[in-house]
Parts: sequence; structure tokens; C-alpha cells
Amino acid sequence: MMKLYFAPNTCALASHIALAEADADYVAVPVDFKASEQQSPQYLAINPKGRVPALVTDRGILTETPALLIYIAQSFPAAKLAPLDDPFALAKVQAFNSYLCSTVHVAHAHRMRGTRWTDDAAALESMKKKVPQSVGECFALIEREMFQGPWVMGANYTVCDGYLFTLTQWLGGDGVDINKTPKIAEHFRRVGERPAVRKAVEDETRELKSAA
Amino acid sequence: MMKLYFAPNTCALASHIALAEADADYVAVPVDFKASEQQSPQYLAINPKGRVPALVTDRGILTETPALLIYIAQSFPAAKLAPLDDPFALAKVQAFNSYLCSTVHVAHAHRMRGTRWTDDAAALESMKKKVPQSVGECFALIEREMFQGPWVMGANYTVCDGYLFTLTQWLGGDGVDINKTPKIAEHFRRVGERPAVRKAVEDETRELKSAA
Repeated sequence: MMKLYFAPNTCALASHIALAEADADYVAVPVDFKASEQQSPQYLAINPKGRVPALVTDRGILTETPALLIYIAQSFPAAKLAPLDDPFALAKVQAFNSYLCSTVHVAHAHRMRGTRWTDDAAALESMKKKVPQSVGECFALIEREMFQGPWVMGANYTVCDGYLFTLTQWLGGDGVDINKTPKIAEHFRRVGERPAVRKAVEDETRELKSAA
Repeated sequence: MMKLYFAPNTCALASHIALAEADADYVAVPVDFKASEQQSPQYLAINPKGRVPALVTDRGILTETPALLIYIAQSFPAAKLAPLDDPFALAKVQAFNSYLCSTVHVAHAHRMRGTRWTDDAAALESMKKKVPQSVGECFALIEREMFQGPWVMGANYTVCDGYLFTLTQWLGGDGVDINKTPKIAEHFRRVGERPAVRKAVEDETRELKSAA
């Protein structure tokens, strides 16, 4: 059985959604960021980066959302979560996921995780101020250039949809008006109604309550 | 024939190396960052993100280094640039590439590309100051936890090696002493001697001179 380490409101939800969409046999284990559990020796033995997600498989531990998403898609091919037999189409999926992790998530992280890149209080404040613009520009680009509709990659739901849903959740906190990107706003509501997505979100809420 | 848009001293070198290792039929086309050519309407029509690399294939255009690396490996399986038949081993490759693009490259980018995240001059200076520490910590983690040896993934050369080589080139400019990570320092010298890597580096230098 796979074990997914997650924290609520993090990008780990994208992998959680993929596991639920795949109807995988898994457990979701919360990591308590408020108690800095991700920096504990126990968790660092699982993921030396001190971050989530981490996926424990029978072959070993995997990290990094784009890697987990393709691995889950390959492990459960019947769920058809990625175009596994078409290298070009798969590269499009990978490019989208890579943009989310290396540009969109990073723009967002300057609001809460700025100490990765500066120790200066005024600089941290200055970074926070630009988040609505930088994140907003990313979503405008996704809406204009990448989103094919009705799903991110066109006719078929893929792991990209759960990943975009996960980052779209952060828009309000980032000071970005979701209605400036109407296709993404409609996509967010539609993805949120999928049974697997509701299950993943409810699992994270329940695990959190039982851990509290 | 594939066409790779690159700028010298950027992460596009990782894809360039992979094409050379695969003995692919390709041309490398320089994008003049000094003249802000990446923001020209002509280039934005190729890559609306205004960044490199971009790979023009007979199916369309691809972007994002991790996506290009796996696409090149899949397009030229005889070159054995990734463990394509083993989803877990492939996920390890993907996790490494994802860490380089979303954490290591991002740490480095705070030296030269800080205006992505702040408009304040003092904040930009503050960001630059932390680059030796943040990039240094990333390389220490790679040396300690990820690098298997003799290649990144162990016994076989993969696309991870050319990608790590590309980012290792930046250490001097980032104020990080390469000799603090002796395995990576030795790897850097060894990868740099591979004929395909020398060809890619020389191609970029020659294209640059002919464009000047």
C-alpha cells in the first residue's frame, strides 16, 4: 500500500487527488507544519528536503510533485491520467506540470516562504507585495496560452487538472481575483465537484482533525 | 529536424547536451538575451513565456527543461538517456530534474532575475546576498542525499548528468566553492570531457560568435 505524506493547503494535494482518481490503495499521513514536523529527524529520514509530498512505495520513497504525478499515472494506467503512449503529448503534460512547480508555485511561495531567499524583513515585505502581480501574470498566461479546455490538455482529464486545481486554491490568499481568468475559474469549480477530488480534500480535512 | 532555441549560460544547455548525446539531427538557434530578443513578438510566438529552452519538433513546440529531457530520451531510446522501461527509476530521474528546476535553479535566479519577485532595489541586493548560502545548501543536499555515483543515478549516465553539469557551471558566479562538494566537482570535470558535452558547449560558443 502506498503512503502519501502531506500537509493541508500544500501542493501535496495534487498527488493526493491523483491517487484518489486512480482508485489506488493508499493512506494519507499528515505532517504537522505548525509544529515544524517536516524538520524533525523522523521526517527528514523520509524526505531530506523537509518538504511534502513524499510517496512511500514498495520500491522506495519518491518526492517532487511532477515526478509523483507521472509515476501514479504509470502505476495505474487504467485510470488514464496521462497520455502515456504518446511522447509528445506526455511532454506537453510534463511542460505544464514543470511550469506549475518551477514558476507558479515559486511565485506563490514568495508570500509565505520568502526566508528561503532573503533574511531581511523589509525585503520579505517587498516580496509579498509583488505576489498578486507575479501569480496573476502566471494564471493569465495559463488561461491565454496553455489551457485547452474543457480540461487543461483538451478532451481528456489528466494529472494536470488536479495540479492546477491545487494551485488555483491559493489565488484568494495570494490576492489574485480568480474571475480575471474565467476559464480557470470554471475549471476550478468543475474539478472541485469530481468525486475523487472531494474524497482527497475530505481525507486531508479528516486526517487533520484526528491529528489535532 | 528539431530546432532548439537557447541562450548561452542558461539551462537550455541541458537539453542541448541531451540532443548531442542522442546524436539527434538538430540545429541550435541562439536567442540574444542582451538585446531582449526573448521578449520580441517573433520569439513570444514560439514561447509565450519569453524564456529558453524551446524545442521545435515536427509535432509542435515544447518548453521546460524536465519535459524536453524526457522527450529527447523517449525520442532516441537507443541512446539510453533515461530508464524508460522502469516507472520507479524514471520517477527518480524526474524527481532529480524537478528539484533542479524548481529549487536549485530558482535559488540561483535570485542573483540575476530577482525582479521576477520584487521591484525594490534594496530587496534585490538582499536576495543576491543569500544566493551563496541557498545554492550551496542545495548542492550539499545533492552531494549527500541524491548523487549515487559514478553518475547521478548510479551505474548509467542519464539526462540528469547533463542537467547537473549545466547548473554546476553557475557555482562560481553564485559564490559557491565547488570543492565543498567533491563528488559533484569530480562529476563536473568528467561530464565536461564527454564528446557530446564538448560538442554542445562548442556549438553554443560558435553560434554566439557567428551571431555577433
